[in-house]
Amino acid sequence: MRADSERDVIVGVDLGGTNVVVGTLAADGSTIGGLVQRPTAVGRGPDAVITQIVDMVSTSLDVVRRERPDLNVLGVGVGSPGPIDTATGTVVISPNLGWRDMPLGEILTRKLQLPATLENDASCAILGEVWRGAARGARCVVGFTVGTGVGGGIVIDGSIFHGASDVAGEFGHMTIASTGRRCACGNYGCLEAYASGPAIAARAAEGIEAGITTTLPSYVDGHLDNLTAQIVYDAANNGDDFALEVVRDTARFLGAGVANVVNMFNPELVVLCGGVTAAGERFFDPIRQEVKRRAFRPAADACRIVPGTLDGTAGVYGAVAVFRQRRLEET
Amino acid sequence: MRADSERDVIVGVDLGGTNVVVGTLAADGSTIGGLVQRPTAVGRGPDAVITQIVDMVSTSLDVVRRERPDLNVLGVGVGSPGPIDTATGTVVISPNLGWRDMPLGEILTRKLQLPATLENDASCAILGEVWRGAARGARCVVGFTVGTGVGGGIVIDGSIFHGASDVAGEFGHMTIASTGRRCACGNYGCLEAYASGPAIAARAAEGIEAGITTTLPSYVDGHLDNLTAQIVYDAANNGDDFALEVVRDTARFLGAGVANVVNMFNPELVVLCGGVTAAGERFFDPIRQEVKRRAFRPAADACRIVPGTLDGTAGVYGAVAVFRQRRLEET
Repeated sequence: MRADSERDVIVGVDLGGTNVVVGTLAADGSTIGGLVQRPTAVGRGPDAVITQIVDMVSTSLDVVRRERPDLNVLGVGVGSPGPIDTATGTVVISPNLGWRDMPLGEILTRKLQLPATLENDASCAILGEVWRGAARGARCVVGFTVGTGVGGGIVIDGSIFHGASDVAGEFGHMTIASTGRRCACGNYGCLEAYASGPAIAARAAEGIEAGITTTLPSYVDGHLDNLTAQIVYDAANNGDDFALEVVRDTARFLGAGVANVVNMFNPELVVLCGGVTAAGERFFDPIRQEVKRRAFRPAADACRIVPGTLDGTAGVYGAVAVFRQRRLEET
Repeated sequence: MRADSERDVIVGVDLGGTNVVVGTLAADGSTIGGLVQRPTAVGRGPDAVITQIVDMVSTSLDVVRRERPDLNVLGVGVGSPGPIDTATGTVVISPNLGWRDMPLGEILTRKLQLPATLENDASCAILGEVWRGAARGARCVVGFTVGTGVGGGIVIDGSIFHGASDVAGEFGHMTIASTGRRCACGNYGCLEAYASGPAIAARAAEGIEAGITTTLPSYVDGHLDNLTAQIVYDAANNGDDFALEVVRDTARFLGAGVANVVNMFNPELVVLCGGVTAAGERFFDPIRQEVKRRAFRPAADACRIVPGTLDGTAGVYGAVAVFRQRRLEET
């Protein structure tokens, strides 16, 4: 199969625990259209999410076809959370979606009558940034996706590094404090237990409960359960000192994680994606300082640390890039 | 250049901060001879070590020539500590040897009249284990060298992974406890500050000073400054409970580091080299348990953790393997 026409498009699906994002890309990645985003139908059983994906792909293609009725759809690239068996297109396990050994690639191929590829969602996001975003041209890239969880991906010479069983790049569960905060995974001191969105909200709530003076409770009418990372950023932007401290602490925790990755991989570029990174330079400055302080000098000097630029669509771009690499370039 | 004769040999040099080891290998790595080991002449100025290497290479070749006078020496592979510029054969900086921008490859080529390659010593040790030791046949290998310091190396499909500036694999300076023990590098909580030989001795001494009952002082006539990791192992083997606890703690710290690497790389095999690993199963059991506890399940399940088998010569084998790859196979 070869993409050689302006009519050729590939659909990208970014399946997340919170949202599904679908878009239709020109096969060379030069344009994106038909963007659709919906909350993931996790509450409606294991099959509901598959129906949702099929509907969203159809919707996305319908939208693009209005402008361009002669579309030639080459296939669908999907990024999904959880350990993936990329060879068989199977989601090995996803507690959030209630899936175990779900042959998502095969099911979508059958329902959509289109070839489909499956890849880890965080790896897709980083590959998307390498293909069409902040990491273009870099040969040795690692990235963090910071949101409800902390994920990661490694892209060497334009291809995702998979490791021995398709789970390389699990940066969220690196230990940054061996006796530290408990993580949802059962371990203590994981980066995710400090730097994910819920962890940021939890750390802020702990400070408030300890009596720190801050405007944060006024954002949630005193209901600390309703605190979110976004509210902490908003308060920081509005000049709340404690919220700013929480943001800076988060940056330092992430910086310790980035420093570890920099020491291990000696990447040329680290790209940080996801909502957490929207805090801007007040967030990236302390990350860079922490890396400078903690990482091996020649590795830190060789490495740029940048925010992703494909806000909300990096995973879609990356899923399409994976489809290209597996189905177009290898034949 | 091609190695196609039984006469062909390559000399391997493992330059360490404590010892230099030199050996002469059949070009295919099937035999090793002329092994020479000397304490590194660090106290006698920057040039003394170079003279020492030249002398040791000559000695090694002389020994092997006694049996095999018709040797054909293809070249010298060198492993050296510190950040290395592999393209130019330069040691960028080695505080221990008093070197900065030392063009070691070029100097040895001139003095020995032989082509020479230069590579990081820890990376050499891991490559040696992949070529001829415990990691033979594994495609995605990471390794730790545990001794005076903690180093590391990454070998993918039989080749050392270098990263953007030749310093990938610095596992000793990963943070395992962000507010923990001070490391010689200036950072806090580095793995090396817990698991290196000197760190093991220091942790034992701290316990003794805090009044713990142990036989350890009797091994050093009460001079705690003379404690070494080896003495701690000896005492553990002789049934000293506290020494055993220090060994187990060391294994847990290393296990946290190994778990991080397992999460990030998803390697098929982790090989641990160096004196610390001589403590055997009482050391490897808690490491494996800690990895199981801390690492992402599918990554931990995919990975074997084994001791190196090329005791004391892994670096020599690896330095020769690097020479082969750069000077024989690429031409």
